[in-house]
Amino acid sequence: MAQPSPSYTVALHLEVPASQKAVTTLVDTASATGAIVNGVDVADTDGDTLIVDLTADTRDSKHRGELVEALKQLDGVIVHNVGDSTFLAHVGGKVEVTPRTPIHNRRDLARVYTPGVARVCKAIHDHPERARQLTIKKNTVAVVTDGTAVLGLGDIGPEAAMPVMEGKAVLFKQFGDVDAWPVALDTKDPEEIIKIVKAIAPAYGGINLEDIAAPKCFDIEARLREELDIPVFHDDQHGTAIVTLAALINALKVVGKKIEDVRIVLSGVGAAGSAIAKLLMAHGATDIVGYGRSGALNSEHTEGMNEHRKWLAENTNPRHVSGTLKEGLKGADVFIGVSSGNLLEPKDLAVMNENAIVFAMANPTPEVDPVGAADYAAVVATGRSDFPNQINNVLAFPGLFRGLLDTGITEISVELLRAAATGIAGVIADEELSPVYIIPGAFDKRVAAAVAKAVRKFATV
Amino acid sequence: MAQPSPSYTVALHLEVPASQKAVTTLVDTASATGAIVNGVDVADTDGDTLIVDLTADTRDSKHRGELVEALKQLDGVIVHNVGDSTFLAHVGGKVEVTPRTPIHNRRDLARVYTPGVARVCKAIHDHPERARQLTIKKNTVAVVTDGTAVLGLGDIGPEAAMPVMEGKAVLFKQFGDVDAWPVALDTKDPEEIIKIVKAIAPAYGGINLEDIAAPKCFDIEARLREELDIPVFHDDQHGTAIVTLAALINALKVVGKKIEDVRIVLSGVGAAGSAIAKLLMAHGATDIVGYGRSGALNSEHTEGMNEHRKWLAENTNPRHVSGTLKEGLKGADVFIGVSSGNLLEPKDLAVMNENAIVFAMANPTPEVDPVGAADYAAVVATGRSDFPNQINNVLAFPGLFRGLLDTGITEISVELLRAAATGIAGVIADEELSPVYIIPGAFDKRVAAAVAKAVRKFATV
Repeated sequence: MAQPSPSYTVALHLEVPASQKAVTTLVDTASATGAIVNGVDVADTDGDTLIVDLTADTRDSKHRGELVEALKQLDGVIVHNVGDSTFLAHVGGKVEVTPRTPIHNRRDLARVYTPGVARVCKAIHDHPERARQLTIKKNTVAVVTDGTAVLGLGDIGPEAAMPVMEGKAVLFKQFGDVDAWPVALDTKDPEEIIKIVKAIAPAYGGINLEDIAAPKCFDIEARLREELDIPVFHDDQHGTAIVTLAALINALKVVGKKIEDVRIVLSGVGAAGSAIAKLLMAHGATDIVGYGRSGALNSEHTEGMNEHRKWLAENTNPRHVSGTLKEGLKGADVFIGVSSGNLLEPKDLAVMNENAIVFAMANPTPEVDPVGAADYAAVVATGRSDFPNQINNVLAFPGLFRGLLDTGITEISVELLRAAATGIAGVIADEELSPVYIIPGAFDKRVAAAVAKAVRKFATV
Repeated sequence: MAQPSPSYTVALHLEVPASQKAVTTLVDTASATGAIVNGVDVADTDGDTLIVDLTADTRDSKHRGELVEALKQLDGVIVHNVGDSTFLAHVGGKVEVTPRTPIHNRRDLARVYTPGVARVCKAIHDHPERARQLTIKKNTVAVVTDGTAVLGLGDIGPEAAMPVMEGKAVLFKQFGDVDAWPVALDTKDPEEIIKIVKAIAPAYGGINLEDIAAPKCFDIEARLREELDIPVFHDDQHGTAIVTLAALINALKVVGKKIEDVRIVLSGVGAAGSAIAKLLMAHGATDIVGYGRSGALNSEHTEGMNEHRKWLAENTNPRHVSGTLKEGLKGADVFIGVSSGNLLEPKDLAVMNENAIVFAMANPTPEVDPVGAADYAAVVATGRSDFPNQINNVLAFPGLFRGLLDTGITEISVELLRAAATGIAGVIADEELSPVYIIPGAFDKRVAAAVAKAVRKFATV
């Protein structure tokens, strides 16, 4: 059963008799339903009754209903309002547009708006490269989606994708001091998306593509890279590839193996899977086999494949393996999953080599239960925050764009991605590494700085 | 000759001998060039010399050069650095994207990003109208331009238009608490612009079109109004019309005339001119004659005209006047200029009726010198901040969108524009009105609130 979590926090506004016992009973009753009480704050009192704000983590909406019902049954308790902290945190949106140079008086107005602004406009018109200095282009990234592949929710459309894009903008600012703006497009046509991103590009110093369905995301990214003079990053591919390589570098140290020598099973040959394969190979991996729904990709069966699967089929799988994922695990050193939940039983991992590494990154449900997997593998990592070793893209994109914007680098090369991964891995000193600490935490402030530093080294001098 | 102004403030970093006399001479010399010294701050000293920051308003870059040369000639003075406050205020852009719900820990992360955010996405997918509550759509406006008609600079392109759009975003936030985002498009094709604005609309609660050349701006606006479910406002037209009507309402009170009775000469039949004519007529004006470069528009010569000039020709000028602007001033009560600088000499106004009203709003140079115009007219207003009665769009758009976003009104009717104008005019009590105080100042905090209040009355209940 799922654990109560802060993503289901309920905020109750209650009336309770003003007695120690009544309040204690309130908390006991809430706890008895399995809720985790975070706080009981008295908001008001008239002597006989207390108005109390009780917040508690629950498992899901059913559990929330049970909690409310149980409290209503208590003597003298009236439930006035049931709030949902997650929804409350989203009311009005999660980002705002704030002046960096406030206007307090006519002097300020004349400087940042008319008439003074005209000189700045003219300077940019005469020297277009000054836009990077004198406008938000200096520090701003567009987070572009069409809402076709959002989280595990699929094609939910641009409006419903906005909370994710806004959340990403929050992360960009807090972890990388990058201004990011959500651009959720009401079109699914790749040509239209390309045209629109090119048209809005004057305001931006970089483009972060997000949650756009494969395979069109590949073409959109390739075309934009070619046709724009600002860096284009596809987080689902490259962000995931960076953090995966970072985790693998450290996991291999923990088990004492070399990337050149290990057999890697890759479950998932979509946007993330192919990008991971390319980056791992650039870092020295020699034996990767990719598995889609119909088994191992190999160069003998490539008809009907899109060009990316085809690339994988032709450039990975040197031993020409065929068959199912489970069969492929035999003798493998590393399992990397970016596919879907519960594909494997923990015992399926028993056929892997000694000191196996398992990255089960499907969200929210990993490819294999990570607790069970630990019985068979030396190192287990997931994409979830409630297990050790969370492989989280937030480790990569804020620092990466920080470095790109600082330098004006427009080309995101494979070498640059490798350097970013090495930067993340290097935050943990060799003597600190352990099977449950192969990757820094999302709130480790050293990470973005390390990534930005690694990226800045690629600046042309 | 132009006055020294804060849009040409120079910031000098100087070394001076550490004596009263040397510093006094510095200030005297600066003043002698005509510069207005704002401040002299000692930044550092080693006993014998002072490092001083001197800021002064100058007229233009030539004047700035003269000032720097004059100071360099002084004994013992070394000019280390010459900064331009206007450019400094623009470095890095003028707005940033700030989290409304910062992420401090895993609990916050789970709430505003994964996994909690998925529930919010799903709620919007199931109930699309919740986007207005749970995303930035609730409070965010796109400031859209293609950079084809920026200030008096003309077609300078999207990059160079950005400083104006960013400035507008600052004004939106400070005066109306509206989050506005600059969208500067790298295309001039009206169909493309329409398509793009429609595609980016999911994130926004309103569209403010800005500095797009006529006549295409009309079509873009009309189409977007028809095809979008959020309000679309063209500031160059409707913003200007609102503030013009507001000023006219009060100016007519000052001179004791009624809008129904006055003859109005309108110089400029572009986007602003035609919108002004329509709004004034909706408010009761009966006798407006519009003048373009080739004289009065009238219904006898409409061939080759775009539909908006044609509308003016057919719906204004009831007396079928022809001839030049100067001829048209004879017997007129009101001159409204939204055309270009120095079209008229002050004495040309002598033929107007008693108690004439002159709004010379061309920027930066009014149609007629406002100081000279005051000899012939009872009320003179301009678009400039350095004369009384500045007719400034900033009085309209922040409060207008505040009201629209608060209520979800999507239709910007002529009646709503009239109400906004009446709201602005009403900020000044009748007994406060005077020939030099017909319109509130840009920093009058009552204005946006009055406009928003007037707009909110149009909400459907």
